[in-house]
Amino acid sequence: MKRAMRQTELFTKTRKDAPADEVSRNAELLIRGGYIHKEMAGVYSFLPLGLRVLKKIENIIREEMDKIGGTEMKTAVLQNKEIWEKSGRWSDQAVDTWFKTKLKNGGEAGLSFTNEEAYSSILKQYINSYKDLPVYAYDFKDIFRNETRSKSGIMRGREFYWKALYSFSRDEKEHNEFYEKIKTSYRNIFQRTGIGHLTYITFASGGSFSKFSHEFQTLTPAGEDTIYLDEGSGLAVNKEVYNDEVLAELGLDKNKLVEKRAVEVGNIFSLGTKFSAPFDLNYKDQSGKEKPVIMGSYGIGLGRLLGTVVEVLSDDAGIVWPESIAPFAAHLLSLGESEKVLGESEKVYQKLCQAGIEVLFDDRPGISPGEKFADADLLGMPYRAVISERSAQEGGIEIKQRKEKKGKILSVEELVKTLSETEKSAEEK
Amino acid sequence: MKRAMRQTELFTKTRKDAPADEVSRNAELLIRGGYIHKEMAGVYSFLPLGLRVLKKIENIIREEMDKIGGTEMKTAVLQNKEIWEKSGRWSDQAVDTWFKTKLKNGGEAGLSFTNEEAYSSILKQYINSYKDLPVYAYDFKDIFRNETRSKSGIMRGREFYWKALYSFSRDEKEHNEFYEKIKTSYRNIFQRTGIGHLTYITFASGGSFSKFSHEFQTLTPAGEDTIYLDEGSGLAVNKEVYNDEVLAELGLDKNKLVEKRAVEVGNIFSLGTKFSAPFDLNYKDQSGKEKPVIMGSYGIGLGRLLGTVVEVLSDDAGIVWPESIAPFAAHLLSLGESEKVLGESEKVYQKLCQAGIEVLFDDRPGISPGEKFADADLLGMPYRAVISERSAQEGGIEIKQRKEKKGKILSVEELVKTLSETEKSAEEK
Repeated sequence: MKRAMRQTELFTKTRKDAPADEVSRNAELLIRGGYIHKEMAGVYSFLPLGLRVLKKIENIIREEMDKIGGTEMKTAVLQNKEIWEKSGRWSDQAVDTWFKTKLKNGGEAGLSFTNEEAYSSILKQYINSYKDLPVYAYDFKDIFRNETRSKSGIMRGREFYWKALYSFSRDEKEHNEFYEKIKTSYRNIFQRTGIGHLTYITFASGGSFSKFSHEFQTLTPAGEDTIYLDEGSGLAVNKEVYNDEVLAELGLDKNKLVEKRAVEVGNIFSLGTKFSAPFDLNYKDQSGKEKPVIMGSYGIGLGRLLGTVVEVLSDDAGIVWPESIAPFAAHLLSLGESEKVLGESEKVYQKLCQAGIEVLFDDRPGISPGEKFADADLLGMPYRAVISERSAQEGGIEIKQRKEKKGKILSVEELVKTLSETEKSAEEK
Repeated sequence: MKRAMRQTELFTKTRKDAPADEVSRNAELLIRGGYIHKEMAGVYSFLPLGLRVLKKIENIIREEMDKIGGTEMKTAVLQNKEIWEKSGRWSDQAVDTWFKTKLKNGGEAGLSFTNEEAYSSILKQYINSYKDLPVYAYDFKDIFRNETRSKSGIMRGREFYWKALYSFSRDEKEHNEFYEKIKTSYRNIFQRTGIGHLTYITFASGGSFSKFSHEFQTLTPAGEDTIYLDEGSGLAVNKEVYNDEVLAELGLDKNKLVEKRAVEVGNIFSLGTKFSAPFDLNYKDQSGKEKPVIMGSYGIGLGRLLGTVVEVLSDDAGIVWPESIAPFAAHLLSLGESEKVLGESEKVYQKLCQAGIEVLFDDRPGISPGEKFADADLLGMPYRAVISERSAQEGGIEIKQRKEKKGKILSVEELVKTLSETEKSAEEK
């Protein structure tokens, strides 16, 4: 991906209004900014700026998954009926969000709505002995869920881009150790993408095998979930398991809990032998005894995470990207058509390019300063650098952080230095 | 993606046999090597080693697309019926390879089998004036085609990973200039991925708008196409347009043409106003006159390209990866269980890691030298580096290129130097 780009090279434009049927704030801002395009309810395409954000989130997640031993693969979308019959999840009665499609030479295939079956079936070919374990494998993948409700913009898609990791362990102890590790990874991911301060680990239903699963819930009125948060300990309980018995078990005091709206940005799940049993996913231990593999699943929706960042960090003027996932670190605005301003802007842009700064250069002719400022606020790059007659008179470039009211004048050398340091620290976080 | 990896960390293993129903050489080798997993006919998952190759191909294509002004985006898989009705390609009569699926709240969606409609519909929102053109936008995307015949392994998928770029130009002249540019890009891509010497630009049917399209055809008996090649000029004609009139037009002499089997690894297509007309994709020129946008489409199937590399470069012992797309530059084999060999192997692996060399370390205990050699040949890394009692006695590591019969002994410093230079030149190519 190019590090620098002229706005005249970008085919998208900002818009005054989002489509009338778009009720969510995240999709409204992202559509107005030209980040995404709505194909139908719950289905969005990522335009060039949106893809840049998505890729940055992907890279952060990839780093955190690789750090704890994850191995990436790319599994198919089309799902083989036979595999899903093994786990009893093929029928529309068992799973009511399937998308299915007919194969031309007979039979049906499903569209991936999750990956337990695909992974179990692949790993079955490779796991025989305790020496083959543990395995931590993951995918970035388009996932399809036939939802009827999809009014939350990119926070609830019928098609969405997803990371799921599956763990295959020898026993509960090994599983639990990894489960704690990935909790830390998830905290890192939400911290690094700018929503850590609003994200709480939340006890939720564990489904048919475990007592609890854990969700990472980010506080926002736009969320579809209700949680009960103990602000002291930072622990929360999802409404679905909120009762006196559970609170007693978790040692939480009902009177200290606050009801909050939140969105589930990640979940981690102990699966036990729920899938290894139907897939005969067993291994021989050191004494030659056959034992079932213990599984876990760990998901993050990248579009939902991106939408959540927009929901919780934006202001009235537009999006506010954290430096770590902003499409560009800086938005360079050229104001006015004088030769002096144009020449200076070009010079500064070239310097930023040479320094490897990620910069979007608003070089559009015939656009008023007011419009350029409004677009910069809407698009939300962390730094705005302005070149105008005034800034030139004052001997430099006016730089301002997106959240600040007032900027300051820097020389081009100081500008390069400031932005280089900013990018470096964003990458290291 | 990690640069170095131990084979004991890799959950895949090599296999003696591919599934009995797998008749293609590319899928047989890739399955035996643990590169891919067959989900059903024409549907494959990419396992960790396979994904590494796919990502390298993707990066080469991305570089070449960005070099000529391409802008990447990520369009949705689920396709809105309304859009396809505009171009008259929604019905199963018009397109016989659709996969369609029912939406739970009524209606149907299609699965992307190509992207002209999606792009035209998106660009319609952003193109108004000659100032907005040209636009060159592209996707990497999973594509779905409901094929009945799928016996060519990953060379013909019902689901496949694809790059498509679409060009939007002001007039034929601007279009033709870009068309020539992308021809060069495609030549670069096939050169860089190791099949340039076998790949010929081929005149094929231009469909309803243009007289010809251009295919890039790679010679292989595994191909499904027949072409007539003029070895002198390097030009070829696809059987579908091979007749006296066409040959005369192209100035080709029938007597000099050789019939060859080949696989289409890329195609470029002038679309004229075929899609801009139904989508009202017009722009105002400098005099304010409304004109239709001239389009072109340019596709490459990444899985097919990968499969073609395997078909044309492999030998009886297995895969032979070009350095540019090999999952790892080197395969380090530790032979024998003596402390000396184990210690030395570990030391060399660490040195290679520190030098940033892409290396797969066969550290598996209890595997015979013969098996390790056979696996190294099957997996096909460009360099094999062996540490054994004998190499240790001779004071180093035995290094051998995949296609060479005999290796030579290098010190660890010489090994690092050789592999660093190799990687550098592979990346620069």
